[in-house]
This record gives sequence, C-alpha cells and structure tokens, in this order.
Amino acid sequence: MNVNPKRFLSNLHELRRIGASGVGKGVVRPAFSETDIAARDWLCAKFSEIGLTPYVDPVGNTFGLAQGKSILIGSHTDTQPEGGWLDGALGVVCGLELARAAMEAGGPAISVVSFQDEEGRFGVTTGSAIWAGTLPLDQADNLTDANGMTFLDARNRMPNRAKEFLDPNIFSGFIECHIEQGPWLHEAAETIGVVTDIVGIRDCTITFGGEQNHAGTTPMHRRKDTFQALSQFSQKINQRFQNVVVPCTVWTIGHVDLHPNAHSVVPGRCCFSMQWRDGDIARLDRMEKIIRETVDEIATEMDMQVTFGPVLGIKPTAMDDHLQAILSNAAGSECAGKWRKMTSGALHDAANVSSLMPTAMLFVPSINGISHDFAEDTNEADLIAGLIVLAKAIEHFGNQ
Amino acid sequence: MNVNPKRFLSNLHELRRIGASGVGKGVVRPAFSETDIAARDWLCAKFSEIGLTPYVDPVGNTFGLAQGKSILIGSHTDTQPEGGWLDGALGVVCGLELARAAMEAGGPAISVVSFQDEEGRFGVTTGSAIWAGTLPLDQADNLTDANGMTFLDARNRMPNRAKEFLDPNIFSGFIECHIEQGPWLHEAAETIGVVTDIVGIRDCTITFGGEQNHAGTTPMHRRKDTFQALSQFSQKINQRFQNVVVPCTVWTIGHVDLHPNAHSVVPGRCCFSMQWRDGDIARLDRMEKIIRETVDEIATEMDMQVTFGPVLGIKPTAMDDHLQAILSNAAGSECAGKWRKMTSGALHDAANVSSLMPTAMLFVPSINGISHDFAEDTNEADLIAGLIVLAKAIEHFGNQ
Repeated sequence: MNVNPKRFLSNLHELRRIGASGVGKGVVRPAFSETDIAARDWLCAKFSEIGLTPYVDPVGNTFGLAQGKSILIGSHTDTQPEGGWLDGALGVVCGLELARAAMEAGGPAISVVSFQDEEGRFGVTTGSAIWAGTLPLDQADNLTDANGMTFLDARNRMPNRAKEFLDPNIFSGFIECHIEQGPWLHEAAETIGVVTDIVGIRDCTITFGGEQNHAGTTPMHRRKDTFQALSQFSQKINQRFQNVVVPCTVWTIGHVDLHPNAHSVVPGRCCFSMQWRDGDIARLDRMEKIIRETVDEIATEMDMQVTFGPVLGIKPTAMDDHLQAILSNAAGSECAGKWRKMTSGALHDAANVSSLMPTAMLFVPSINGISHDFAEDTNEADLIAGLIVLAKAIEHFGNQ
Repeated sequence: MNVNPKRFLSNLHELRRIGASGVGKGVVRPAFSETDIAARDWLCAKFSEIGLTPYVDPVGNTFGLAQGKSILIGSHTDTQPEGGWLDGALGVVCGLELARAAMEAGGPAISVVSFQDEEGRFGVTTGSAIWAGTLPLDQADNLTDANGMTFLDARNRMPNRAKEFLDPNIFSGFIECHIEQGPWLHEAAETIGVVTDIVGIRDCTITFGGEQNHAGTTPMHRRKDTFQALSQFSQKINQRFQNVVVPCTVWTIGHVDLHPNAHSVVPGRCCFSMQWRDGDIARLDRMEKIIRETVDEIATEMDMQVTFGPVLGIKPTAMDDHLQAILSNAAGSECAGKWRKMTSGALHDAANVSSLMPTAMLFVPSINGISHDFAEDTNEADLIAGLIVLAKAIEHFGNQ
C-alpha cells in the first residue's frame, strides 16, 4: 500500500480553497454553512471517484463507505468561524489518500468520515455525539447557534441526506489524525504524537458573596471585598496545585463577573469560572478537593458566603490499547526518537466514537502551537510523516 | 445661644417624611425629583418662619440668608436613589436649629444652605462645584442622568429660582456637619470627628494584553493569561502597600473586564480599575509609583503588553486650621476623650466651598458604618452632641 504524498497535499490544498478566507491559509467553513456543504459535496465526489460509496447521515456526518467490514479513518471538515486549513480537514484528507492507496493495493478496506459540527456551532462534537447516542437527536434539534438558528433547520440545509444512521458494526475501528493544537511536539521538534487519552474536563462556577460598600469610607480591615477573595483564591490554588499536577494538567479562570463592577464600589459579589483538565480521574478528584477546600478556607477567613455551582464535566477517554500499540510501532519505525505518547488537551470526535468501536488518535505538530486561527500551520514533512505512519499502522491492522 | 434638641430632632423627622421609603428610616429624594423639590420648599418655609430670607440660586442651591455678614452652615438634602434619612440632611437641619437659636439669642448671624445634587445624579457635588466655579454652568447643563435627562431640563423644574449666584463674600466661613459614613467613630465608641482634610482620590484603568488561547491545549508554561497577571498584581500591591499606608488609606479594584470572558479560553486581555485614596499627596504619589512599578514588573515577567490609562483624581482638601481649632476646642470641652481628628474618605460639598471661604467639617458616627442605604442611622445622643459642639464653636467664632 503506497500512499502518494503529492496527491495527498494537492487534495488538502484543493479542500482549503473551499472557504479560503482571511490572511495566510485561513478557512471559514462553519457547520452547515454554504462552504461547509460545498466541502462535503466535494468530498462525496472524491469518494465516488475512488470507488467509495458516499453516504450522508441525517445529521450531515459524511461517509465514504468501502465494501464489507472496514476500518474508519477521518475527522471533520467544518471549522471555527475563523479557522485554520488543517485542524480536522487533515484527518479527512488522510482518510481519502489512505482509502485510495488501499484500493489501489487491493486492501485493506478503508472507509472515510467527516463528522458534522465538531467545532460546536450547535453543541460540542455534535455529529459524532448524536451517532454515539450521547446526545439524543430530538434534544439536538432544539439546540441553536449564536444567531438563534436551530440544529433542525441547519441539518435540513444538507442535500442527499440518508434515512438512517449507519450501523457502527460495519466498522472494525476508528483512527483520527489531527493537528496537535498545542505546542508540545513543536517545542520538542518531534513529528508524531500517539494519543493515550483525551483529557477529562471539570468546570464550575463559584460565587463569593461579601459586602458591597463605599470605596472611600470603608477601611481595608472592614471590607468583605469579593475581588480580593478571588485573587487570593487564584494565587493559593496555583501554589497548592504544584504538588499534584503533571506538565499537561491545565486550569483556567476565564470568566469573571464582579458586582456592581464600578471603580468606586467595593465589589459585594464575584462570580467566576474554574475549569481544570487532566487525563487522570484521580488527579481531577484531588484538584477538585483542593479547590473546594481553598474556597471554603477563604470564605471562612474573610467571613463571606460562598456558592459552589454544579461541577459539569467530561470523563477522560482512554484510546484503545491495541490500536495505540500498532500506531506506536509504526511511529517508532518511521520516526525513531521523534515521537511520543501524549494526552489530548482538546476534545475530539474520537472521544464519542470510542464508545462504538476500538478508537485511536494520531497527532502531528502545530507550528508554535497555534490553532483555531488563520495562522495555523504544520510543516509539509510532518503532514506526510503522519500519513505514512497511519498507512503503516493500517496495513498492520488489516493484516491481523 | 441655647439650641433645642427636641425641636432639632422633630425637624429632622419632619424632613424625613418627605420621600420616606423602603424599610426603616429610608428616604428617596434624588436631586430635582418631586420629593427633593418638596424638601427644598419645606426648608424655605422654615427659613421664612425663623426670619431668614429664602434664596434659591440658578442651579437649585437653597439658602436661608441672615442679615449682614454671616457664617454659613449646611450640607445637602438630596439623597441617593435609595438613601438614608441623615446623610446631608443632618447638616442642613443642624443649620436650621443653630440659625433659630442664634436668632433667639441675638447673634451671631447664621445662614443655612442645602446644596443641590451633592449625590451626583448629574455630576459630583454638582451644585457646590458650579457655585465654586470648578464646574462651568454651560458644561453642567449638558450633563445627563442615567435616563438621559439633562441638568438644564432638571434645574428648570425648580420654582422660584433667582437670577444670580450668591456672592460668597457675604459669608465669613462654612461649616458642614455630616454623618461619618464609615465605621471609625462607631468602632471606637466616640461621638465627634473633626475633619482635618477630605481625602484625595486617584483612579485609573490598567489593561494587560496577553495571548488569547485554548484552555485545553495551551500548557501553563506557555500561557500569557491576563487574569493571572491581574491576580498577581493585586496580591503584590497589597504586600507592597503595607510599608506605605496609614489606617485610613484605601485602595480598590472594583471593575474587571476580561476578554473574551469565556470558561474555555485563556483570557487575552484584562482591563481593570485601580483606585486609591489618602489625605496626603506624597503618599498618593508613593502609591502610584508602586502601582506603576508592579504593573511593569509583571508585564515584563509575563511578556505582556500593558496600557496604563490616564490617572484621574481629586487633590486632598485641607480644612481651615482656625475653624478646625475652634471645633476641636468645642469637641474637647463637650465630649472629652470621645472625639478625634480624622480624614474624610468621602467627598463632600465642603471640598468645593473651601475654595471660596474658610471651611470645616464635623462628623458624627454612623451605626456600623452604614450609609447610602435605608439602614443608615445614628444614635440620638450623638446627633444632639454634634449640634451642641457646633453651637459652642459658632458662639466662639462669632465672638472673635
């Protein structure tokens, strides 16, 4: 099975021209936009051209089906409102080239997929979540985008849609190739990341209730200043996490809402978001314990009310051991000393698909760790290396 | 000169009924509202009753004029949208009782004033600022309240308005009695505060510019998280101010604006307010130096942009030494061991009037330091003590 790097890169650039926008290699192809649908039509034409059967399911997930039981390769072709040219598109075009090369070589059977709305115009990895059954269709249909359009109206814009969802049992496994979106591989000058798990996320809203007061007449010792509570919390958490976290653990206070948010008033209420991510449930638990203890400690010290909102989240998703091993072997033989096992800090369709079949992910570097931005890019050599590692792994998987 | 505490308290309660609202002793009498104008009409009737000549200037400052050169006593009768019953009303009703007692005693000559819009529906101490010339009338006329009404339209609602502003030279000095609005006297179980100065305020907006990024894929060591810059700034400032400040110094971060203010995004921009107040210009300067150095230090350490907005402010205003001495003597003889010299952390009409004539202020306690709230109150004994100290001081001033 011989992949054709030139044909692969040419297809990537052909797809990029659908929705090409902004500076550099920017692309604008949000789910169900005209350019997104055009990209899926382009993909279906390519499927036909190489002998796969195009199949669009009721929510716009776009498949190119091989005959018989096949391994599924892909990702998504929709983008952020202002996206880069690779992101999920890379995984889909990888699938296209691999399917073509396999077809030319007489096997193994490879199907291709571009899931719909991975970027969450309506939800979070909407298309694969519906297929995996974690998001019921009738619930999804009521989801709306930022302009109030419903998912139902949006999916009615997709032509040629099929009557039924595909039975996942026609696939033997799923491999998603994606750019890393973070800086780890780029910083280490490595070429391949074999994903061990997709991190879990926990997210909650915490509110300190203090005392709104005159910023001139209220002495410092009499204040119950909720911004001071927040800033103390943030500093203490940073210190206390030091003994718990690993290098890929992240935590973020990204949303802050002070009341009444005025220069001359001691803020009497502060509502803020606390989000933390890690691949290990036990570590997520330990972090949550520290967060709760620290919030309570500050509330007690500063004589404040505290409300700890519900902790929403997604569990870490482990990738299939066997597929990981095959990908690692292929990476080791093609890119010796230039690859690593790693956690994915971002959510991907693979997290949903993993409940349907054995699933794995392969990363290639993002230059400077940039993604979801027109400036997103990856060196051609790394794109080709990713394709070749995938080809090796699939040959191995297909021969078992 | 014998003041009548019963008559004084009765007048305070009579005035309170104009605009009485909410719970407890709450009052709603914003500048130029129907209740505010009714309170000024009530005051003019009282002036006539005790032999003072009512005089309303073009912006609604309401005087009761004695014959010949007189000392001016007063404050303001307008309130916050939800105010307490004392605030400025106390100083005006003190003036009324003192003028009446002086009239009965055959001297000294006392005039009374209720300035307009001290609470800043349209500006900041608007009426006294226009009289003092710090706010030009044509500029004030264009100021609007929260609903878009102009100051010009508002002042046209005041009946009986005079053609000219009063010549300040008809007054020999101004004394403003006011509730403290802070907790210092209440906490120390003291009765009288003689104000040495009204604090200066400095206020600016500071913006950290970092890097907006994915909260999942951006490792901690690669972040330029502007919320983290703010929280570090706040903690460092608190430490560094320790060696500089005095107990009445205050500083506040009351307004925070993160961008894009989303749970899953490392905030790339953080704009926040920094306000600090102290009675001493040199200390305000030292604090500003620490603020600027700390902001620059953090911006350098975290590789961020920083924008330091214009520093707006009001200089500290010293009260007249001679009037302070007279008030202190009176406080010392009437309330031995129960009074103090102190700074005013809030702005008052006295700050404007001090540019026109010798000016001083007297504070009585606020129970639990509460003000600008329906719950605002002061013990009757303290109200009466304030009146008596003022009477002693004015007798002394009038006899010089």
